[in-house]
Amino acid sequence: MIKVTLIGAGNVAQHLISTFLTATDIEIVQVYSRNPTTIIPEIDSKKIISNFSDLKEADVYIIAISDDAIASVSSQLPFENRLVVHTSGAAPLDSLNGKNRKGVFYPLQTFTKGKPVNFKVIPMCLETSIPEDYPILEKVATAISDNVHAINSHQRKALHVAAVFVNNFTNYLYQLGNEICIENHVPFDILKPLILETAEKLLTLSPKEAQTGPAKRNDVSTIEAHESFLSNENQSTIYKILTQSIQNHGKKL
Amino acid sequence: MIKVTLIGAGNVAQHLISTFLTATDIEIVQVYSRNPTTIIPEIDSKKIISNFSDLKEADVYIIAISDDAIASVSSQLPFENRLVVHTSGAAPLDSLNGKNRKGVFYPLQTFTKGKPVNFKVIPMCLETSIPEDYPILEKVATAISDNVHAINSHQRKALHVAAVFVNNFTNYLYQLGNEICIENHVPFDILKPLILETAEKLLTLSPKEAQTGPAKRNDVSTIEAHESFLSNENQSTIYKILTQSIQNHGKKL
Repeated sequence: MIKVTLIGAGNVAQHLISTFLTATDIEIVQVYSRNPTTIIPEIDSKKIISNFSDLKEADVYIIAISDDAIASVSSQLPFENRLVVHTSGAAPLDSLNGKNRKGVFYPLQTFTKGKPVNFKVIPMCLETSIPEDYPILEKVATAISDNVHAINSHQRKALHVAAVFVNNFTNYLYQLGNEICIENHVPFDILKPLILETAEKLLTLSPKEAQTGPAKRNDVSTIEAHESFLSNENQSTIYKILTQSIQNHGKKL
Repeated sequence: MIKVTLIGAGNVAQHLISTFLTATDIEIVQVYSRNPTTIIPEIDSKKIISNFSDLKEADVYIIAISDDAIASVSSQLPFENRLVVHTSGAAPLDSLNGKNRKGVFYPLQTFTKGKPVNFKVIPMCLETSIPEDYPILEKVATAISDNVHAINSHQRKALHVAAVFVNNFTNYLYQLGNEICIENHVPFDILKPLILETAEKLLTLSPKEAQTGPAKRNDVSTIEAHESFLSNENQSTIYKILTQSIQNHGKKL
């Protein structure tokens, strides 16, 4: 049984708490929250604390808070030489205060408040400042996920940037698609099966193999028809730049 | 029982043939192909023809060929005043020759050769030049799909442009994400659960509600860190433009 304490009560913390409660090898020792009323109801209220001085011994302290607050919170912990990890894709390992052993416990997923996620398939990206701590963190991760990876800080940075492309930017393209539907009085729902299939295709094809469309085929008349259809300047700019980028992709400049 | 003849043997035609064969209300009269060896094996070989003069009477002729060839092929049909439809999202209704009654039978999905699709959920976008033909086309569509819509030419154009954003451009962002992974020695597989969740989120949230990330939060330090991480000029250009577009989105200029 590994003893885990959560520090934070935001979206990621709440999802971790829910999944740790179902894991047989994990004991949640405590949950720290500045505002204890926000903690999910399933947790025993005696375990919820709001003073760092009440923190008990645990094998791992997981800080799941905003990146900006990691340095400050980790410096306020009233103990030394314990394993303290953060859950951020973007924050460096060294944003954690040096008085404790450092690590990263980064679940690479987008969490929506109130929507349960299946942690078994979520990639858990782990890093520890000293190799001896890796097996401890790995045990915590494998207790909830079948998809555990040792990822160093440079790799994590790359994953975080790549995630912006495939998650944030992709969702923004969905938003522009939705906008075009609204402006032309067609239900956006009509596009949802296509959106799902586009994502699911990656399970059998690489994105390069899956690439289709007028830009890829260099179908100039369709591209021109689309450009003249789009009267919104923002949509039109994004259309042109992504089309050109697809057309030039892989070509030597 | 509705009698349907397919003209064409490409990807869309093949998927339509497979699904029509399983539909109890549809009889495939014939399949026309210039090169009959490419037809899927399940179809009775006597039904496969390669001369327009062999075409028999049918309730609907579905032309599933490249957009450029629709005008020419529809003009070569040796009959008049029958219902002839194309399957294109981009081609206008009037690309069909005027000697027959015209229509559009557009399945809004991305088809991969050899990968079966569940037509039941595919949006079928229908249009006919005369209202009396709509119920015929609707019967063909509802025989294979539960997701049938009357979509006029303007709406179809909008859907086709929007589909480029949510399918072609999105897949291109997957490709850039894959590239960043390769360059930094992390497996792209780690991003696949995130990609799927980003698409599935739309079943419960609008893209606007689902938008997250450094651009949306205006998290300047993360944006700067990402921009300095990206050494590839194409990746860096796309990153900057989409970030700016997200930041400015909805603002009055």
